[in-house]
Amino acid sequence: MPDFHTIAIDAMGGDYGPSVTVPAAAQALREHAALRFEFYGDEAQIAPLMNKEPGLKAVSKIIHTDKVIASDEKPSAALRTGKTSSMRLAIDAVAGGSAQGVVSAGNTGALMAIAKLVLRCLPGIERPAIASVMPTMKGQTVVLDLGANIECDEHMLVQFAVLGAVYARAVKGIDNPTVGLLNVGTEDVKGNDQVRGAAAILSDVDFPGRFEGFVEGNDIPKGTVDVVVTDGFTGNVALKVAEGVGALTSQLLKESLMSTPFAMLGAVLARGALKRLKNRVDARTYNGGMFLGLDGICVKSHGGMDAYGFSRAILVAAHLIGNGYNERVAREIAQIMEQRKLREPEKKTGEA
Amino acid sequence: MPDFHTIAIDAMGGDYGPSVTVPAAAQALREHAALRFEFYGDEAQIAPLMNKEPGLKAVSKIIHTDKVIASDEKPSAALRTGKTSSMRLAIDAVAGGSAQGVVSAGNTGALMAIAKLVLRCLPGIERPAIASVMPTMKGQTVVLDLGANIECDEHMLVQFAVLGAVYARAVKGIDNPTVGLLNVGTEDVKGNDQVRGAAAILSDVDFPGRFEGFVEGNDIPKGTVDVVVTDGFTGNVALKVAEGVGALTSQLLKESLMSTPFAMLGAVLARGALKRLKNRVDARTYNGGMFLGLDGICVKSHGGMDAYGFSRAILVAAHLIGNGYNERVAREIAQIMEQRKLREPEKKTGEA
Repeated sequence: MPDFHTIAIDAMGGDYGPSVTVPAAAQALREHAALRFEFYGDEAQIAPLMNKEPGLKAVSKIIHTDKVIASDEKPSAALRTGKTSSMRLAIDAVAGGSAQGVVSAGNTGALMAIAKLVLRCLPGIERPAIASVMPTMKGQTVVLDLGANIECDEHMLVQFAVLGAVYARAVKGIDNPTVGLLNVGTEDVKGNDQVRGAAAILSDVDFPGRFEGFVEGNDIPKGTVDVVVTDGFTGNVALKVAEGVGALTSQLLKESLMSTPFAMLGAVLARGALKRLKNRVDARTYNGGMFLGLDGICVKSHGGMDAYGFSRAILVAAHLIGNGYNERVAREIAQIMEQRKLREPEKKTGEA
Repeated sequence: MPDFHTIAIDAMGGDYGPSVTVPAAAQALREHAALRFEFYGDEAQIAPLMNKEPGLKAVSKIIHTDKVIASDEKPSAALRTGKTSSMRLAIDAVAGGSAQGVVSAGNTGALMAIAKLVLRCLPGIERPAIASVMPTMKGQTVVLDLGANIECDEHMLVQFAVLGAVYARAVKGIDNPTVGLLNVGTEDVKGNDQVRGAAAILSDVDFPGRFEGFVEGNDIPKGTVDVVVTDGFTGNVALKVAEGVGALTSQLLKESLMSTPFAMLGAVLARGALKRLKNRVDARTYNGGMFLGLDGICVKSHGGMDAYGFSRAILVAAHLIGNGYNERVAREIAQIMEQRKLREPEKKTGEA
């Protein structure tokens, strides 16, 4: 591990490009002095913004390219024609070793497709998953997969459980993280073959966390477990429902507090408390979809994020790098595959 | 249609039994004078409570049984051994014609299993779905399936779309309800075979609503469409995430408003507004899981509801009966099957 963590930034990704990505990196650097940056994108746009941030400029390189992958470009097209794009070059930097991680607010499908092709999966992982932390009654829970894999068999769910548990251990510092499989009930008979099969395997292997069995949708905001594992279809819907209900409640609260003079006065008096509440559930705080399971750190920012939000995604990448996340996953997966080989010799190891 | 609507009440179901179900019926009767009731359960418990509600007593019968299906009883066991249970007798009353609908706060799995066996599905419907309304930015959206069917093929999703659209039309009075299929993105290529297949059929048939294509998780709280269709696994998770995030936000708001003297004073001033907000998102208001697609009206109340909450479930049943919901569904499904026969003669009609 180098003492410095170099992050390759897809400077052009997202709705606002360098006007967000450059100040975001400056913000991240103020909080994490060991960061170094490579900015991939249009130098004519990046350089003037960089000149306003001398501290950042001193630890950054700009690698110019004109080519940008559009937000609506199909992943297959991005793979074929985007070889000199800011996104592709930033990912190539991780594969080449000049950077230890990449952060992009660009097209999610293209980012996943290129990252899979260029970085490939860690040994023992079939498919990367998108993971993110969500706010809960007790603090935070990491949820995966949030949409990379629409259909998941039991082995993929087991791999996601390991990816999530190692994240909770290595990055969140939780010694023996609890892991739950998202289901429609907590009884053993509930759910589909995939979740029941994954539960059987997780109950049977030594595993870098404590498997708590099935959890339900409300267990995510309750914070019942440290890690919630699900397929990408269900996880994506769960994440977006949670974001949507958060937005609905905040909108209804605002309307209520504007509805009478008494309520307005009350809102003024409670302003500080309401602001702290807003910060607690601020989507920017939780920005940074981690593409876990790739042989290289890759973090996706929401496209519409401001500089503060994008800086959170940079710090997510920095923490994955700094805590040796991928090295730990590789070790844990190797151990689990070993156990499965011993216990179920008839299974192909390629499946596990 | 009779002028009166007779509701069979599983008086013993739920956490509180007759102490909730009897006053709930009295409350429903105050709001809907055309209701008549049959109470199935322990007469020794029901009769004294009924004596306190002379108005209710005048329009109710008590049919005594000692037998109750436990909340943790397996559906298969409930089917075999629960033939004289309060739940079974209440459902039998609908099949026999003495009641037009049944309401129970008992064991969901048992209720669904018995209702399917006793009432059977409407012609053209393969499986009933559980539907409920959820609060949105624009008012309310009906979502189904919320957990009756863990795996759904494209034909089942199409049938659910009809069940939901007829509900929006017949009960909510929405002339041309908009219907969306829950997915992980709105583009045609997104999702699994089931949702893409259902979208293809719904785009191609005359249908009692306007098919708007795919919607995402946040479109439920946004109120983008009147009806959201999904499989029972995803729907169950979505509902529980929404309930959980609502509870989380309300808890965090309470903590914030208790955090400083200014905030507490503000909360007192805004009390009326905060109470209206609470009512707006009160789970009791939305109580009443409709088992749509059965040849008989069957509504499930949450087990932990108080009398006000249970009375909402009774009114849900009353509105389904009063608006001739099942007759309309049967008509619409017959029309759609007719179209499919014309357009795709190679398909077995049994599939549609």
